[in-house]
Amino acid sequence: MSFKTVALVGRYQDSQLGEHLRALAEVLRQENCRVLIEADTAAHCQMTEFDKASFAEMGQTADLAIVLGGDGTMLGAARNLAPWGVPVAGINHGRLGFITDIPLQNAHAAVIDLLAGRFETESRIMLNGSVSRSGQELFAGTALNDVVINRAGRGGMIEVRVDIDGKYMFTLRADGLIVATPTGSTAYALSAMGPILHPSLNAMLLVPVAPQTLSNRPIVIPDQGIISLTVLSMARSEGGASVHFDMQTWSDLQPGDCITVQRAPDTAQFLHPTGYSFFSTLRKKLGWNSMPSADANEP
Amino acid sequence: MSFKTVALVGRYQDSQLGEHLRALAEVLRQENCRVLIEADTAAHCQMTEFDKASFAEMGQTADLAIVLGGDGTMLGAARNLAPWGVPVAGINHGRLGFITDIPLQNAHAAVIDLLAGRFETESRIMLNGSVSRSGQELFAGTALNDVVINRAGRGGMIEVRVDIDGKYMFTLRADGLIVATPTGSTAYALSAMGPILHPSLNAMLLVPVAPQTLSNRPIVIPDQGIISLTVLSMARSEGGASVHFDMQTWSDLQPGDCITVQRAPDTAQFLHPTGYSFFSTLRKKLGWNSMPSADANEP
Amino acid sequence: MSFKTVALVGRYQDSQLGEHLRALAEVLRQENCRVLIEADTAAHCQMTEFDKASFAEMGQTADLAIVLGGDGTMLGAARNLAPWGVPVAGINHGRLGFITDIPLQNAHAAVIDLLAGRFETESRIMLNGSVSRSGQELFAGTALNDVVINRAGRGGMIEVRVDIDGKYMFTLRADGLIVATPTGSTAYALSAMGPILHPSLNAMLLVPVAPQTLSNRPIVIPDQGIISLTVLSMARSEGGASVHFDMQTWSDLQPGDCITVQRAPDTAQFLHPTGYSFFSTLRKKLGWNSMPSADANEP
Amino acid sequence: MSFKTVALVGRYQDSQLGEHLRALAEVLRQENCRVLIEADTAAHCQMTEFDKASFAEMGQTADLAIVLGGDGTMLGAARNLAPWGVPVAGINHGRLGFITDIPLQNAHAAVIDLLAGRFETESRIMLNGSVSRSGQELFAGTALNDVVINRAGRGGMIEVRVDIDGKYMFTLRADGLIVATPTGSTAYALSAMGPILHPSLNAMLLVPVAPQTLSNRPIVIPDQGIISLTVLSMARSEGGASVHFDMQTWSDLQPGDCITVQRAPDTAQFLHPTGYSFFSTLRKKLGWNSMPSADANEP
Repeated sequence: MSFKTVALVGRYQDSQLGEHLRALAEVLRQENCRVLIEADTAAHCQMTEFDKASFAEMGQTADLAIVLGGDGTMLGAARNLAPWGVPVAGINHGRLGFITDIPLQNAHAAVIDLLAGRFETESRIMLNGSVSRSGQELFAGTALNDVVINRAGRGGMIEVRVDIDGKYMFTLRADGLIVATPTGSTAYALSAMGPILHPSLNAMLLVPVAPQTLSNRPIVIPDQGIISLTVLSMARSEGGASVHFDMQTWSDLQPGDCITVQRAPDTAQFLHPTGYSFFSTLRKKLGWNSMPSADANEP
Repeated sequence: MSFKTVALVGRYQDSQLGEHLRALAEVLRQENCRVLIEADTAAHCQMTEFDKASFAEMGQTADLAIVLGGDGTMLGAARNLAPWGVPVAGINHGRLGFITDIPLQNAHAAVIDLLAGRFETESRIMLNGSVSRSGQELFAGTALNDVVINRAGRGGMIEVRVDIDGKYMFTLRADGLIVATPTGSTAYALSAMGPILHPSLNAMLLVPVAPQTLSNRPIVIPDQGIISLTVLSMARSEGGASVHFDMQTWSDLQPGDCITVQRAPDTAQFLHPTGYSFFSTLRKKLGWNSMPSADANEP
Repeated sequence: MSFKTVALVGRYQDSQLGEHLRALAEVLRQENCRVLIEADTAAHCQMTEFDKASFAEMGQTADLAIVLGGDGTMLGAARNLAPWGVPVAGINHGRLGFITDIPLQNAHAAVIDLLAGRFETESRIMLNGSVSRSGQELFAGTALNDVVINRAGRGGMIEVRVDIDGKYMFTLRADGLIVATPTGSTAYALSAMGPILHPSLNAMLLVPVAPQTLSNRPIVIPDQGIISLTVLSMARSEGGASVHFDMQTWSDLQPGDCITVQRAPDTAQFLHPTGYSFFSTLRKKLGWNSMPSADANEP
Repeated sequence: MSFKTVALVGRYQDSQLGEHLRALAEVLRQENCRVLIEADTAAHCQMTEFDKASFAEMGQTADLAIVLGGDGTMLGAARNLAPWGVPVAGINHGRLGFITDIPLQNAHAAVIDLLAGRFETESRIMLNGSVSRSGQELFAGTALNDVVINRAGRGGMIEVRVDIDGKYMFTLRADGLIVATPTGSTAYALSAMGPILHPSLNAMLLVPVAPQTLSNRPIVIPDQGIISLTVLSMARSEGGASVHFDMQTWSDLQPGDCITVQRAPDTAQFLHPTGYSFFSTLRKKLGWNSMPSADANEP
């Protein structure tokens, strides 16, 4: 794999973003790469000295995309570029992210490494979700982290019937239900007491949020399954429910609506500098090295 | 204590409610009690043969209120009658409730017992909450179960700063935060992994819902404390937050709003037939008698 | 598949076991099957009228084994017969089990169904574990549910270093660590807040028991991985640790001992009457149909 | 309160302990205090230049005890000195402890502050536990953190019947049961998913460890209650159970044994430098300031 055309994508809320992107672009130019800037990023940073490109154009033209931002920016870019198989590498200029694993101070060296082929490729599954009402598709979306059904802020619990491959699983009364990929297992699902799924696992994860039945638990199923979620009711008239894809797009829901979730045909491609370790990221992000109550109960 | 005037309160969603209430009223009349019917209940059941009364009128006149309904109906009646010290007994005509502990089939005998003084009285603490914006009180409410701040359905996480008695406790990023009484510890808080608080405990319970920091845990504090919750931000522009009192009244929130929660001066008074056991109710409601995985891992 | 020779295995603690087994054996004889009785079962029930067989003999001779007992009896039989590929069906004469899914009252009809080919076959992965000290293998075992390391009853926490495929994952300080198959995810692991894994998932589950670091969470990994668990220390001199296979066999551990766990080459074969649903069993065993606090927080 | 005689207690596993203790003793002498050294500490550090004292002698003579060590050392000293009402201050020379809140580098200034009266006093409740078999008391102990019943390392689950004030609460099948004080709520109980109890709360906490019934939850009860724990059985013949007091003393248990736990008449007295905040300690120990997954699910 040779990266001749490289696209840059930036997170908008950062006053120094343009400066960091220009430095990266300069490195790429010195390495004889053609540089594209994602259109919104270019507009935001007033970077008119490079060709700008929509995600679709990047998909058709770029060999690699480099994201400078947080996990949210990375999610959007990876999801948008997955249909074209363009791999994505993430540089985090704030805190370490779960999926943006190159610290900004290492960016220069990391880009040189990527261009020289010193990287590891990782495929991450995504989910396709489709909302239908009375047999008509209302909305469709793709998620790299999760598809989440939740109650409205003022609403009572939602009641959702869950089927897999046409077979009844269970009916949930809860604040919400998360269907997560392994990538999403370390995002919202983790806050709702879900387990961590290794990124290479071919599995989907269902995590109830604040379930009324205390024995409801997170469930892991193979990624070939087709999950159907039928909204049975919202407990209050003023209530409501909605479904979210990576917490970035959404659709309102009514009782009777059915959301079908299944593995997307495309996968997101992440590039990591050689030596990347998923568990190293976990240890750092989750503070597994520190031992909060180490000396309690000890003589 | 002698119960001369007894008020009846009914849950509306029940086609047979009028029939059950009339039977109860008949028992009370035979015992020489004056019978009042809560105004909305009377209208709903077309019970014109009895005096009707608002909660305020019941508070001034009644010696006892009997609620026929679920825990939600009981919550509302107990909260409304607490300022007048009118005790409340709960008859459940569906499932056993946590606080409506007299089954409908035992209603006749239970009412006779109550009138004859064969009961136990239980005080339950309540919470007063007040929402202020720029120093002005926007909304005030009372809760017997809980005061809940939560994100809007489409919103991202909320960020709330928690102080107690003017001292900084912690800053929470989560779907929501529940401040519960011991009574509320078996309601929504339990779904969010909160502990069970014995009803006689002089304590308040803070339970985060899906907290981002994995080491955030439910916290129990003495009921003399004054809790201040300051909304710092909602993660998304389209988002928002609201605060709920017993999930029955609410107010929308903006960043900067401060919610003060403290023990209410009044307590709700529950009457139970002699022999009532809080733990017996728990065992039944939570299925502690059944052992789901009893024979796994056994030879 | 034609079941000509059928072995019967019984749980010992049941005074009526012999009666039930004789009835089953009679059905099998009428269907022209050769009947074998597992040797310990035969001795216990004084069933001298049938050929008795060790598990090894059953493995070589039988086409099917029928277990009458709980999940523990089933675990042992399935594990012992897996090397020979003999499928196992489970009849539960007490409570419904997670893996013994035929109720005793349906046993006659179910056996007829099995012999007539009306069944579904399910493969369940197993784990091989090996304990080594100073490079020497001390103990080896196989588990269909779980391999569990735990502290001694009088000991303090254990400290275990976890590697997968030679890469460092994390170091755990806890009461114990469970490595479970999907089958074991509904046994001990579930009590320790582990997720439910669908039986068809090619995965292994690590669940810490009472971990000191509050952000330690259950982790699901692909079943091709090789897990190494190194005992670093036990916190107290009087303490100790041990490793258990399906809670049926075990070995004591010393600091420095290394336990290697990986998927076993054999799989256990379960037969279920046609129409079996894993989720139906879950719903029944975990009480998902009942809604404990349904009416709290409702009007 | 004037501290004329001050006792020093040290943790043994520290090669520099003697040096630190001598420096502290020197400060005390310059402030005209009489210095006592706890007898085992003196022997361990060969500190023959000061009077040595048993805990009983310290109780009768000392006005203050200063502990140099971890939370475990502090637990032992506070428990031993509680009957005499001698207050204890804790200096932590390693990690910050939950109850040893003065960092070693601040020790000199903190001791001056204590002697000058610039401190806050905090009372912590303790538990008395008594084990009886066939009506005979076998063992008695006191705990400042917790009384813990747990299964033997090789055993199966234990089954324990829990009564409070002679009323049946529930029967638990689990790895263990923790009865904790508010002080103990941040120790072992926290690892078993228990809530945090504010130190001033008059309450006891019951936390099941890996309970078989998934709806078993931590329970908080008033500290006036008398808890009876009856061991019903251990699931396996080779098993067993034991009861532990602060994980420092213990007794083996047999089926039928009854452990009675109630609030001890004495309380431990902790001294903190003025400005001490329980929640500040929590935030530091539990890492509440860091936000592990802050940027996941964000744009």
